[in-house]
Amino acid sequence: MDLTSYLQERKSLIEAELTRSLKDSEIPKTLRQAMTYSLEAGGKRLRPILTLAGAEAVGGSLENVLPIAVALEMIHTFSLIHDDLPAMDDDDLRRGKPTNHKVFGEAVAILAGDALLAEAFLMMTKRKDSIPADRFMEVIHDIAIASGARGMTGGQVIDMEATGHEISEQSVEAIHRHKTGKLLTVSVVVGAKLSGASSLHLNALQKYGEAIGLAFQIADDILDLEGTEEEIGKDVRSDVSNAKATYPSIFGLEGARAKAKKLVDDAIGALETFDERAEPLRLLAHYIIERRK
Amino acid sequence: MDLTSYLQERKSLIEAELTRSLKDSEIPKTLRQAMTYSLEAGGKRLRPILTLAGAEAVGGSLENVLPIAVALEMIHTFSLIHDDLPAMDDDDLRRGKPTNHKVFGEAVAILAGDALLAEAFLMMTKRKDSIPADRFMEVIHDIAIASGARGMTGGQVIDMEATGHEISEQSVEAIHRHKTGKLLTVSVVVGAKLSGASSLHLNALQKYGEAIGLAFQIADDILDLEGTEEEIGKDVRSDVSNAKATYPSIFGLEGARAKAKKLVDDAIGALETFDERAEPLRLLAHYIIERRK
Repeated sequence: MDLTSYLQERKSLIEAELTRSLKDSEIPKTLRQAMTYSLEAGGKRLRPILTLAGAEAVGGSLENVLPIAVALEMIHTFSLIHDDLPAMDDDDLRRGKPTNHKVFGEAVAILAGDALLAEAFLMMTKRKDSIPADRFMEVIHDIAIASGARGMTGGQVIDMEATGHEISEQSVEAIHRHKTGKLLTVSVVVGAKLSGASSLHLNALQKYGEAIGLAFQIADDILDLEGTEEEIGKDVRSDVSNAKATYPSIFGLEGARAKAKKLVDDAIGALETFDERAEPLRLLAHYIIERRK
Repeated sequence: MDLTSYLQERKSLIEAELTRSLKDSEIPKTLRQAMTYSLEAGGKRLRPILTLAGAEAVGGSLENVLPIAVALEMIHTFSLIHDDLPAMDDDDLRRGKPTNHKVFGEAVAILAGDALLAEAFLMMTKRKDSIPADRFMEVIHDIAIASGARGMTGGQVIDMEATGHEISEQSVEAIHRHKTGKLLTVSVVVGAKLSGASSLHLNALQKYGEAIGLAFQIADDILDLEGTEEEIGKDVRSDVSNAKATYPSIFGLEGARAKAKKLVDDAIGALETFDERAEPLRLLAHYIIERRK
């Protein structure tokens, strides 16, 4: 199986649905432009790709889980817009383009983020009659936990409070588990859960998700340290200059690489009860630490 | 029926549930403090009170709809925190207390708002087994519409864009219908919808909600114009100094009062098919334009 063409095909599917979702004249024009600007600014679409791959691994239908997949990308995009704000990381560039508040101003950027979060929950109610409503309710619950005070948003607060302080391996892990890990993990699990996966399979996907979630963040830290501005599209070493807690700062570059590799092995190990339909998930685990941007 | 003691009793019920909902050690301390600060800053709790009254009017159980009622107060609070930010209305006081960003800083205030929105959707998944999941899904859908790009958040953008421009009655109405009307209307409807109300009753409550939503905003505009700082707990005439679109600026003070009164009559008229269980809704319609703060 060719991962490059697989990723490309899935990206197209997801981006078509993203674009379709905001073509609604009920949304005021400026707000729609700001939301669309960040949603269409590119990116790997990793979270929705994981959702589709999770469904695929248990024989689920892609069409049924596409709205949930797209909702997860909206939540990710909302978090990027708010993280970039002057009051937060104060970034001017994101994926090589001016950040949302640089183009639309701070007020509209805040509201575009807010609207994307609400829109994500709206997408989650686009239910297919073939799937019981109870399952959707569970999925909405899981995503609300992963994105809110107990997950991503909480992680952002912990991260801010740790910045500038010397912190332990344990603290770095807690930050990343909340800030990026929980949303990545839930992305893997909810596609399978909607598709009616067994709890054995869901537990395995949870473990897979937690491992790749952490591996992803370590790879990000490494890229940030060694990347060129061109490759990652934002100010290089911004984490270093902001004195953020990173894996290479604790384990050194080689130690961080070894830890990421071990996590990928763990992730693939967690999938042993799955058949060849989990092949995309296995390849994605490798991709997560080998990507260049 | 004594409205004052009714309101007090409902407020206690709602505030106890609000406080309970955030007592969770999984939420990082600073974030929990910031969320709690604004949730416990007082306020009339009008939206959740309307949700409970909507359920009551069709014979529904208060206990079953309490989580949804509380979710609506969280969404309202999220919008107040973000509206007060320096990039938006830049207010220092809210209900006589320093605004969230004045106490916790801009970054935490943005994140506290974000977290309250996610938390609201989490509350909506606290379903009682006695109510079909389908009904919850419909309610989550309605609330996502009312709070996001097609509702409250969109209204904030339209309002910002109109500020400083001369605008028509139609535009003022469009702003308020989005910015405050849709969330108030959905607050009235969802309690009844969860309780299994007929579509005849739901349509009537929708009309009631739209009328009191607009009346509420007109009353707010009037209060803002004639209120004292003590009474409304924020800088008086802030709308005037910000050149915001208001009803008194279009109709004059007396014209605005007459319009509000007509809307309250319309709202009560919409309830003619309801029995005495809708008495709280009828009294609430009067209260909305007669309140002093």
